[in-house]
Amino acid sequence: MSHLRGFASDNNASVHPDIIKAITNVNNGHAVGYGDDIVTDEVQKVFKKTFGEETETFFVYNGTGANVIAIQALARSFNAVVCARTAHINVDECGAPEKLSGCKLLPIETDNGKITVDQIKKYMHGFGFEHHSQPKLISITQATELGTIYSIEEVKAIADYVHSLGLLLHMDGARIANAAAALNCSLADITFKAGVDVLSFGGTKNGLMFGEAVVFANSDLARDVKYIRKQSTQLHSKMRFISAQFKALLESDLWCVNASHANRMARLLAQKVKDIKGVRLTQEVESNGVFAILPRHIIEPLQQEFFFYVWDENQSEVRWMTSFDTTEEDIERFTEVLKKLMA
Amino acid sequence: MSHLRGFASDNNASVHPDIIKAITNVNNGHAVGYGDDIVTDEVQKVFKKTFGEETETFFVYNGTGANVIAIQALARSFNAVVCARTAHINVDECGAPEKLSGCKLLPIETDNGKITVDQIKKYMHGFGFEHHSQPKLISITQATELGTIYSIEEVKAIADYVHSLGLLLHMDGARIANAAAALNCSLADITFKAGVDVLSFGGTKNGLMFGEAVVFANSDLARDVKYIRKQSTQLHSKMRFISAQFKALLESDLWCVNASHANRMARLLAQKVKDIKGVRLTQEVESNGVFAILPRHIIEPLQQEFFFYVWDENQSEVRWMTSFDTTEEDIERFTEVLKKLMA
Amino acid sequence: MSHLRGFASDNNASVHPDIIKAITNVNNGHAVGYGDDIVTDEVQKVFKKTFGEETETFFVYNGTGANVIAIQALARSFNAVVCARTAHINVDECGAPEKLSGCKLLPIETDNGKITVDQIKKYMHGFGFEHHSQPKLISITQATELGTIYSIEEVKAIADYVHSLGLLLHMDGARIANAAAALNCSLADITFKAGVDVLSFGGTKNGLMFGEAVVFANSDLARDVKYIRKQSTQLHSKMRFISAQFKALLESDLWCVNASHANRMARLLAQKVKDIKGVRLTQEVESNGVFAILPRHIIEPLQQEFFFYVWDENQSEVRWMTSFDTTEEDIERFTEVLKKLMA
Amino acid sequence: MSHLRGFASDNNASVHPDIIKAITNVNNGHAVGYGDDIVTDEVQKVFKKTFGEETETFFVYNGTGANVIAIQALARSFNAVVCARTAHINVDECGAPEKLSGCKLLPIETDNGKITVDQIKKYMHGFGFEHHSQPKLISITQATELGTIYSIEEVKAIADYVHSLGLLLHMDGARIANAAAALNCSLADITFKAGVDVLSFGGTKNGLMFGEAVVFANSDLARDVKYIRKQSTQLHSKMRFISAQFKALLESDLWCVNASHANRMARLLAQKVKDIKGVRLTQEVESNGVFAILPRHIIEPLQQEFFFYVWDENQSEVRWMTSFDTTEEDIERFTEVLKKLMA
Repeated sequence: MSHLRGFASDNNASVHPDIIKAITNVNNGHAVGYGDDIVTDEVQKVFKKTFGEETETFFVYNGTGANVIAIQALARSFNAVVCARTAHINVDECGAPEKLSGCKLLPIETDNGKITVDQIKKYMHGFGFEHHSQPKLISITQATELGTIYSIEEVKAIADYVHSLGLLLHMDGARIANAAAALNCSLADITFKAGVDVLSFGGTKNGLMFGEAVVFANSDLARDVKYIRKQSTQLHSKMRFISAQFKALLESDLWCVNASHANRMARLLAQKVKDIKGVRLTQEVESNGVFAILPRHIIEPLQQEFFFYVWDENQSEVRWMTSFDTTEEDIERFTEVLKKLMA
Repeated sequence: MSHLRGFASDNNASVHPDIIKAITNVNNGHAVGYGDDIVTDEVQKVFKKTFGEETETFFVYNGTGANVIAIQALARSFNAVVCARTAHINVDECGAPEKLSGCKLLPIETDNGKITVDQIKKYMHGFGFEHHSQPKLISITQATELGTIYSIEEVKAIADYVHSLGLLLHMDGARIANAAAALNCSLADITFKAGVDVLSFGGTKNGLMFGEAVVFANSDLARDVKYIRKQSTQLHSKMRFISAQFKALLESDLWCVNASHANRMARLLAQKVKDIKGVRLTQEVESNGVFAILPRHIIEPLQQEFFFYVWDENQSEVRWMTSFDTTEEDIERFTEVLKKLMA
Repeated sequence: MSHLRGFASDNNASVHPDIIKAITNVNNGHAVGYGDDIVTDEVQKVFKKTFGEETETFFVYNGTGANVIAIQALARSFNAVVCARTAHINVDECGAPEKLSGCKLLPIETDNGKITVDQIKKYMHGFGFEHHSQPKLISITQATELGTIYSIEEVKAIADYVHSLGLLLHMDGARIANAAAALNCSLADITFKAGVDVLSFGGTKNGLMFGEAVVFANSDLARDVKYIRKQSTQLHSKMRFISAQFKALLESDLWCVNASHANRMARLLAQKVKDIKGVRLTQEVESNGVFAILPRHIIEPLQQEFFFYVWDENQSEVRWMTSFDTTEEDIERFTEVLKKLMA
Repeated sequence: MSHLRGFASDNNASVHPDIIKAITNVNNGHAVGYGDDIVTDEVQKVFKKTFGEETETFFVYNGTGANVIAIQALARSFNAVVCARTAHINVDECGAPEKLSGCKLLPIETDNGKITVDQIKKYMHGFGFEHHSQPKLISITQATELGTIYSIEEVKAIADYVHSLGLLLHMDGARIANAAAALNCSLADITFKAGVDVLSFGGTKNGLMFGEAVVFANSDLARDVKYIRKQSTQLHSKMRFISAQFKALLESDLWCVNASHANRMARLLAQKVKDIKGVRLTQEVESNGVFAILPRHIIEPLQQEFFFYVWDENQSEVRWMTSFDTTEEDIERFTEVLKKLMA
């Protein structure tokens, strides 16, 4: 396998130079640990400016950590969490949500990773019936694990429905920047202004070295979170090094520049490969992922040159992710190799 | 509070320049995520060279993560873990061990943070009696939370006793480098050669930005660990950035240089303050912590200049930690202020 | 609602007179608690005779308790349990399996509550991939929650497949007696001789007052169970009163008489209602449950006379269960009322 | 070992004839399961009459179940529960509280099983400090595991203190009847009128076959309990058979007659043995337990005649429990044998 850039995942990418610089800049002298430092204080203000003055933000290590903290904060162990079957919390966290929250996940089968009010409705029964896990939280991923995007209206519709039943809405925003960039809206527009109650805000897939954030709509929802974060092993001691990264990401438009670039690269990739005979795209390319069905015998030789993951063995479907550091040349080279193999 | 270096904790320190350099060096191109990259592969070999070819190492985010993974790997929820009452797992992890492992902790009262075979013996009963949590794991901290150190012989004695009962030995080595430096022995001598079954190997308190390791004595003990790590939210995607730090720490003698310096600064600090009237040291200064009883009214003014933590409110006992970046000038200035306040 | 016998559930039934007698008979003097008494010792032998000398049996309070103990004994929290979507463990235990075991449940959609090797196969992937909960246990219910029954050959086929992958087979036998009676085979034939690794053996639905059993294929699988049972709150102190019930059930053919009668009553009920216009049976009547679609407006008036549960609101499908104490007169009366309402 | 009555535990006793009668009386026809039956409805009223109209009662299987439900209802996993080191929840439930609630237990060393406000105070720190499990619940046992009793004033003092900090008070009342009988007060006086927030109300040790109750001071505290009970595997299907037992126990003064008798037998036993040379009583005999130090070589021969448990191996201390069915003849015979062995 080449050491160059591939299309395996946006978390195979490097760290953006501005992020490295931000880390280096705060590396002087001592700072109080666990978030009681000046940098963390500053970036908390940036988050309030970004997401709303009512919101409360907690930094954590990774997306699984963010998600399980969000669930524990808003649900008890006898509750159920409704999500798409393809949701990261359902298929890619080795059961961390079940283990840490004790909740049952109720997975919805979808075509494109997005769930609808009508689909959610089918799970809204058994309230008060103690034999059934009580639905409490709906979790949607934005952008989805299949590269698709909920419109602001779609998020609002889900939020309104969920709230009308006294339930709450979680958004797994591991790629929320890609979604906002694609929708050309602010981060607040597609999250708290649309009715989200808690957001897992992704950093690593958008150019950070490590660090994600859990953002709550208000301090009531966030009341116990500092204990939950600590008990869930997600509290970093040298916190300034996470905070500085987020400051760099959000204070400028770096979050948007990075995400827009990755999105553009995915569109370019899709455009280049869609007309190759034998390649069939399986999802709309709305953010930074491209899903395609390939002839089975092509996959391994192609992976030798550019590492990527098979998405669905049975269907010979693969996933190609682009990132902030993907270049047009990468795509050119990739397309060349693919074409050659397909010939 | 001044922005200069204080004595609050070795995790208030900065990141060592060599570590920053190591991070920067690996920040090029893409790398497979979650540990399947070249850097991680290399550093795994460094760990085997350091701790023994039989050992198996897993990188995680922080000490709490390392400890709860070690416990889950070696104990089931109906087991008990015996430790000092002052152990980090018992008092500083907000119940993470209980929540994630389901185990009961059996805390032993000690004078100096160290537990002995005789003390452990008192908990070795009830085997086979299903009403009692079954003792399975003994956990010792090296250096202890009180700055004291187990000799190699003391560790061996505990390990031999523990093994004679079919139990296992965990070492919380958040400051294992300080212990090895103080004992002037290798990292293997004080851990696996002395009978340790699993080690939480600390990095952050010895100059890293983030990252700890869990090292198992052999692959049998480590069999399920990759799943446990993932489910415990402790698997990093851009793993090379943890691995590179550990490579820099262990490949040279950086781990020892850093730890030795911190230890020397603690001894210097102790020497400077021990004869100040009204100050009484409460623990042997064997690694990088100094514990002292001060007049109550002195504490707050002193904290204004140099932040540190009160260890025991009732006794007016405080804790001062030194680190790799503590300077003699820091100690001079600190001693000056303290003397002035005590006058 | 009348105080007479209804068709809500076999656990709405009374306690069989022989069971009452067995309880009364052991109520003399003191007996060592928690199972170390003579009655429990005797009934352990009866279980070995019934299920095989290699098996190990543990008495618990209820079916949920039996199931979560079986899962905890054979799986770790990072494992997944594959079952029918309609399985009791998946929909009727308020998330107890997830909470107590930490495992993920992987539900299979079925027509009749039975899962097949082909369906299981689709979930047999991701082994060794730490992001996915690792499949370890397959759970089937016999008779199923829909009143259908696996043949001995079907159980064997699943067991063989499961074992070929190194996985294990759990049978939720809340109504195992009904299944064995219907198949006209021994309890061993349809369980351990067919390859089951652990059985939740139901008593309450077959005439007991309280008490179920968890039976393991061998002592290796059962090694930790006594601790798991205690920690899962399922160890009874006055154990002889559970043991005596099971002794009465298994030492004679009471288990089979009771179950056969219930099965016969279900067939009779089905026969009586199947030709009523507007009533449509939805499942084969193979054990003691009858599932039917009724006109929606009939349901509530019918429930006023005989309490029963709606199975599927959307489809206007109801469930009628018969039990050891159901009489032909009950069915006559029920059919009369139903006919009158349908007229 | 003789089959006669011994002094091992009040749960080695038989079931009171009135309880058997109550069970038999409700064994007619069908009843809705899980507590929605007439008998359960009636006994709920009896509980309100006994403990206060504001209280809410839930029936469960056993004491461990009652305790872990109480803890889960009133505490989150990041909370700590303060109790005596000898508390049943701390030493006799195989870690069920930790596993099911995730909470840390903070055990207090005591001489007589009773904890005081002054002792509790030492644990009331670290509030708001996320590294420490947050104290939320104080648990006292009444009568204690050592046979001693809190006076009404002592309970009130603890309740007042606990409430002044916003914490809550749990009473493990496995032997609450013995305590109320000894204090000659009502069950309400020593529980909710004294400030208890949740009570584990014992039945099995006072003559029931199976069944305990969890009683909450008000419906706010009890809001989620029905789900917690189900998910904790403690919901019985044929509930009327638990309810009928409690109805018989509380509707008449059976609870008090049984407990008073057991208490009287303990006093008689203590009186008979206290002057035997070589026997030393170690606790006040305030309820139905007698604790004594015996010559080590006497213990086994005595156990051959009357089974009982060694309480503290190191001290050669044993425990003798009396129950509702202990007779004066039992005590005579026991004393005879003991005297003979001591001679």
